[in-house]
Amino acid sequence: MAIIVHKYGGTSMGSTERIQNVAKRVAKWMRAGHQIVVVPSAMSGETNRLLALAKEIAPNPSPRELDQIAATGEQVSSGLLAIALQEQGIDSISYAGWQVMVRTDSAFTKARIMEIDDSKILADLNAGKAVVITGFQGVDPDGNITTLGRGGSDTSAVAVAAALKADECLIYTDVDGVYTTDPRVCEDARRLDHITFEEMLEMASLGSKVLQIRSVEFAGKYKVKTRVLSSLTDPMIPLEQEMKSGTLITFEEDSTMEAAVISGIAFNRDEAKITIIDVPDRPGIAYQILGPIAEANIDVDMIIQNQSVDSKTDFTFTVPRAEYQKALDLLKNSVQKHIGAKEILGDAKVSKVSVVGVGMRSHVGVASKMFRTLSEEGINILMISTSEIKISVVIDEKYMELAVRALHKVFELDQK
Amino acid sequence: MAIIVHKYGGTSMGSTERIQNVAKRVAKWMRAGHQIVVVPSAMSGETNRLLALAKEIAPNPSPRELDQIAATGEQVSSGLLAIALQEQGIDSISYAGWQVMVRTDSAFTKARIMEIDDSKILADLNAGKAVVITGFQGVDPDGNITTLGRGGSDTSAVAVAAALKADECLIYTDVDGVYTTDPRVCEDARRLDHITFEEMLEMASLGSKVLQIRSVEFAGKYKVKTRVLSSLTDPMIPLEQEMKSGTLITFEEDSTMEAAVISGIAFNRDEAKITIIDVPDRPGIAYQILGPIAEANIDVDMIIQNQSVDSKTDFTFTVPRAEYQKALDLLKNSVQKHIGAKEILGDAKVSKVSVVGVGMRSHVGVASKMFRTLSEEGINILMISTSEIKISVVIDEKYMELAVRALHKVFELDQK
Repeated sequence: MAIIVHKYGGTSMGSTERIQNVAKRVAKWMRAGHQIVVVPSAMSGETNRLLALAKEIAPNPSPRELDQIAATGEQVSSGLLAIALQEQGIDSISYAGWQVMVRTDSAFTKARIMEIDDSKILADLNAGKAVVITGFQGVDPDGNITTLGRGGSDTSAVAVAAALKADECLIYTDVDGVYTTDPRVCEDARRLDHITFEEMLEMASLGSKVLQIRSVEFAGKYKVKTRVLSSLTDPMIPLEQEMKSGTLITFEEDSTMEAAVISGIAFNRDEAKITIIDVPDRPGIAYQILGPIAEANIDVDMIIQNQSVDSKTDFTFTVPRAEYQKALDLLKNSVQKHIGAKEILGDAKVSKVSVVGVGMRSHVGVASKMFRTLSEEGINILMISTSEIKISVVIDEKYMELAVRALHKVFELDQK
Repeated sequence: MAIIVHKYGGTSMGSTERIQNVAKRVAKWMRAGHQIVVVPSAMSGETNRLLALAKEIAPNPSPRELDQIAATGEQVSSGLLAIALQEQGIDSISYAGWQVMVRTDSAFTKARIMEIDDSKILADLNAGKAVVITGFQGVDPDGNITTLGRGGSDTSAVAVAAALKADECLIYTDVDGVYTTDPRVCEDARRLDHITFEEMLEMASLGSKVLQIRSVEFAGKYKVKTRVLSSLTDPMIPLEQEMKSGTLITFEEDSTMEAAVISGIAFNRDEAKITIIDVPDRPGIAYQILGPIAEANIDVDMIIQNQSVDSKTDFTFTVPRAEYQKALDLLKNSVQKHIGAKEILGDAKVSKVSVVGVGMRSHVGVASKMFRTLSEEGINILMISTSEIKISVVIDEKYMELAVRALHKVFELDQK
C-alpha cells in the first residue's frame, strides 16, 4: 500500500464526462489498495473565463481580488471530482487550499507554497477516503486566498506529495511523457523512460512545456519521485502497465544505466534579440538597461555582454517575440539617451535551440560537435550561451526545424 | 455616519455592466460618509449552472460537495464587485464566508447562521473600506463550506447587519418594495411604505416572494431595520430620495400612525388539497398520515382536522401542486390501508388567498367581512385556517384573481 498523488490538468477535467473518467482511474488505484490524493486543475477554459470577467471591469484588477475569483475554478472541479468518485463507490472529500492549510506567501497571482499541513489529509487517507485537493491555490498568513500562477497545479501536486512523503507523484497530462524533442518538428523524437530533474529543468524552461518549472524545482528539492504520463489512455488499463508508462523524473544519475551524453533537444521558436551597440563599459550599466525592461514585466532570457574594446561594449539579450516591440520602444525612448549608447538593433525572427544532458558533464566535445553540425548545415550561430548541462544557440528562425533534426540525429537520440 | 448593509440579488449582479452599476451606487453611499458592507448574490444563472454540473455526474450528489461547488458563485461576484468598487476610487476588499467567519451549523445546502465575527469587518470599515461579503454561505465548526439554501443571501445580509449593529439593511431587488398584493393580479395594488415584520412573515410565506422568510425571522429576532427597495433605479439618484424609497420592515406598531386593519392580500395559486375520509380518531393518527409525507420531502401547508363523529373524522391538508400526485400515490399505496381510512379524495386545482394585517388583533369582524365578500362574489370556501394576524381560505383556482381583487377593494387597500 502506497501513498500516491495524482494530478490532472484542465483538459483531463474538461467536461463532466472526462471527470467521470478521472474518477474511474482513481477508483482503480484505490481498489488496488493504494491511498490516493488527487490534485485537479480547473475545467479547461474556466480560469480564462473568470479572469476575462475581471478584465471587463478593470484593465488592471487588484491581484488579491483576482485570486479570490480565479481560485473558484479548482474548487468547482474538485467538488465535481469528489462527487464522481462517490458515484464510483469510493468515499471521497474535496478541500480548497485553505481547508487543508496549503500555506503560501502573499505574492498574489504568483504565490509560493511555504508549508502544507498533512494531518487532515492523512486522517482522511487512513479512513479510506480519496482526498481531492484544489490545485493552483493556497492561503496566506492573513487568511487571503492566493494562486500560484499558470500551471500552478503541478506545483500543488508535487508539494502535496512532498508534505505527505508520498511514494510517487503522477502528473497526468495530454502527452504521454517527455520526448527527446518535439515530435511535430522531428519525427524520430522518442519518449524518454526517465530524465534527471536537472535535465527536466532545462527542458522545461526551454519550452518543452510538459511541467511547470517550479514544480520540477520543488520535486528536486524534496526528492519527490514524479512521473509524467497520459490521461488519454483507457482509465481501466491494467495498473501494472500504467505504473510503468510515461517518463519518470529521477534525482541521481543511475550508475547502473549507461548515461546518455545528451537527453534531448529543446527549442523556443518565438524569440527576438536586441543588441545595444557601443555601450559605455561602466559599473551598473547592465542594470540601467535591464531594470526598465524588468519593471515593464518583460521576461529576459539569454543575456550576452562581450569583452569591451576602448571602454565600449555591445550588450545583447533575448525576449519573447510578443514583447519585442515593447522592449525596443522602451530602450529607444528612455534608455538609449540616458546611457549614451550609439545604436539599438533588433531581430524579431530568431529561435533558440538547446542540447540538454547531464552526460555533458563527463563528456568533452559536445559543444564542438553541436557547432560543427550546425556549420555543416549552413546555419549561422547568432548567440551562444552555456550552462553545466545545456548549450543554447540563437539562430535565424527559418533554420530552426533543420537544426533540431540535425542535432537530434547527430546525438543519436533516435536510438535507445 | 452610519453603518449600512446593502444586499444585491443575482439579477442586479447579472453582468459586469450591472456590477459596475452596483459599484456606482455603493460609491455614492460611501462618498456621503457612510460605512458600507455589501452582500451580493452570485451572478444570475451561475448557481443553477454549477448545480447542473453536479447533477450531470450524480442524481443525488453529496450535499457537502454541492456546497463546496455552489459557494463559488458568490465568491466570484464578490471579487468582481470589489474590483468594480476600486475602479470607482473606493478602497474595497471581498471576503468569502469563512474569511470573516460566518459560522453556521453543518446542515449542508440549508445551513443556519450561528455567529458572525465582526472584528475584521469593523477594522476594514474603520479603515475606510467598502467590505464585500459573499452571501449565501458560511463555514461549519469543522471548517466545511456550507450554504444557506435558495435566497440565503438575504439572510446573510440581515445577519451581517445584526452582527455589526448596522443602522439599516437595504435589500436591493428587482421590485421596488412590498405591495398590498401582486400588481399583476390586481391593478390597484399599492406599495406599502412600511410593514411590520410579522406581516412580512405572513406575506413571505404566503407567496409574496420579496424576501427569504428566514431573513425576515432574523430581522425580527435581532431588530434589524430592513428596507426592500429597487436596484433598477438610476444608481446616481439622490441619496435622500433613495433612503426613503421601497418598503421598510418595522418591529413595533407605531402608535403615531393609524394602523391599517389589513396590510395586504397574499395568495398562492399552485396548491392542491387532499382529504382522507373516515379516519379513525385515535392518538397518533396525524403522525401516521403526515410522517410518510414529510419523509418524502413534500411540504405540507394547511392542515385541518374536524371534530370527530362516531370516532371517525376527516383529515385535510394542502401540498404544492407539483407534489400532489406523489403525495396521493403515497397515501393510497402505503397509508390508507394501514390506518383503515375509507377513502382518499383530492383536488389539484385549488388556490389559497389570505388577508394579512397586525390591525386584525384589535379589530373584530375581519373574518366575517372576508367571508361575506367571497360569498357575494359566489366563491365557495373549501378550507379555512387562521392565525393571529392572518386568515387564509382555500378556494377553487378559477376564482383566485376575483377573490384577490374583491378583498383588496373591500379592505380599502387601494387607499393610503
